[in-house]
Amino acid sequence: MPTFKITLAYDGTGFVGWQRQAAGVSVQGLLEDALRELDERDVAVAGAGRTDAGVHALGQVASFSLARVIAPHALVRALNARLPDQVRALSAVEVPAGFHARFGARTKRYRYRVWNAERLNPFERQYAWHVMGGLDVDQMDAAARLVEGRHDFAAFQASGGARRTTEREVHSSRVTGGGALVLYEISGNGFLRHMVRAIVGTLVEIGRGRHGADWMREVIASRDRSHAGPTAPAEGLFLVGVDYDAPAPDAVL
Amino acid sequence: MPTFKITLAYDGTGFVGWQRQAAGVSVQGLLEDALRELDERDVAVAGAGRTDAGVHALGQVASFSLARVIAPHALVRALNARLPDQVRALSAVEVPAGFHARFGARTKRYRYRVWNAERLNPFERQYAWHVMGGLDVDQMDAAARLVEGRHDFAAFQASGGARRTTEREVHSSRVTGGGALVLYEISGNGFLRHMVRAIVGTLVEIGRGRHGADWMREVIASRDRSHAGPTAPAEGLFLVGVDYDAPAPDAVL
Repeated sequence: MPTFKITLAYDGTGFVGWQRQAAGVSVQGLLEDALRELDERDVAVAGAGRTDAGVHALGQVASFSLARVIAPHALVRALNARLPDQVRALSAVEVPAGFHARFGARTKRYRYRVWNAERLNPFERQYAWHVMGGLDVDQMDAAARLVEGRHDFAAFQASGGARRTTEREVHSSRVTGGGALVLYEISGNGFLRHMVRAIVGTLVEIGRGRHGADWMREVIASRDRSHAGPTAPAEGLFLVGVDYDAPAPDAVL
Repeated sequence: MPTFKITLAYDGTGFVGWQRQAAGVSVQGLLEDALRELDERDVAVAGAGRTDAGVHALGQVASFSLARVIAPHALVRALNARLPDQVRALSAVEVPAGFHARFGARTKRYRYRVWNAERLNPFERQYAWHVMGGLDVDQMDAAARLVEGRHDFAAFQASGGARRTTEREVHSSRVTGGGALVLYEISGNGFLRHMVRAIVGTLVEIGRGRHGADWMREVIASRDRSHAGPTAPAEGLFLVGVDYDAPAPDAVL
């Protein structure tokens, strides 16, 4: 039973998200359907980040075990032959049994794209949040840096979220921009549901001048979702990549 | 009856093209519907370039006359409020009566995007032609330069095209690239139907090494569509901009 780790890119437009749902097309469902055809049995796929409906991925990671033996490059080709072109397998590697894309993930990296111009760019409508009125990128970046470190991020948790702990470690949180495109990049050891989008909603309030950068500190300290900005729309969010510890030397295949 | 020149961007995915058709959604049709609502009468819109189904525009130009008086910036806002977000009016200016977006156009500029990598990028699937196998960009550029100048471009005319003359003047024709994205940029005084896409199909044959750069000269000289490469798919093509002579000083409003 070889176990594989694959890296995927997908355009999340039109999907119900990563996770299989009762109705609608999910990335997990598409992968499991493709793998069932390939392996002639049901295959359970684990994804590193459960992206919501409309959220995109440049480097999602998934893991699964197959009954049949197949070379990684042949697996990539076989998957891409069976997947719609909104989803592409980029690479595959065989990993030790027991590897799990979600539980083993050490760092996840997300990017959020804001289109900050009077008029929407029609090519950005599914890949950015259109925010009118000039944003103060320096203030946003100053606020973004306050997110770095270990904090209780309960203020940025989707309502109804009930994780055991809402403490997470953010390694890097930065806003860059100039011109119409404002980018937010964040990496950390884990993220609560809607956390990145709620941070972006808060940063945009600061960029609009409704609050100073220090407001971010207050919002975090409040641990109360009602204190933060709105949840930014899904279409601006990209899962950029997921990092894992290198396997112990004797675990390398 | 003020006459307006407007500049538009649109994502051509899902449209039947610029021109109103018996069935399907066209950009011209959307504009005429929006203007009928605004002007409370039928308004005929002329477009500089009649882009085909799936072809995009970064700077299409259209012209029309209205019965009502409206400031150009208010016209842009009113159009964008009525258009779907795949189409955006970028700017408007009032022009002398008699201005016609197509007949007055001096230069049109097109870009064609080729995604040259083993695997499709899912975010490029509607905005580039996916060509597998490395392309020789230097050879493509050498061939592209042979397109510059005044030529009879009958070899690149859509079958069934029957323009009075197939002679056109190409001002600039260049291929650039590096990495997965290969760009072709062409500007000229006019283009036959499918001309840019047939040139691109011919350039890709050269880039693949099936012919040398000089083959372009032979194809042009043949004036025979069957000698050229295939018509590249619509989704890679963008109408970048349209240039006009400045109006005579006494014509300026």
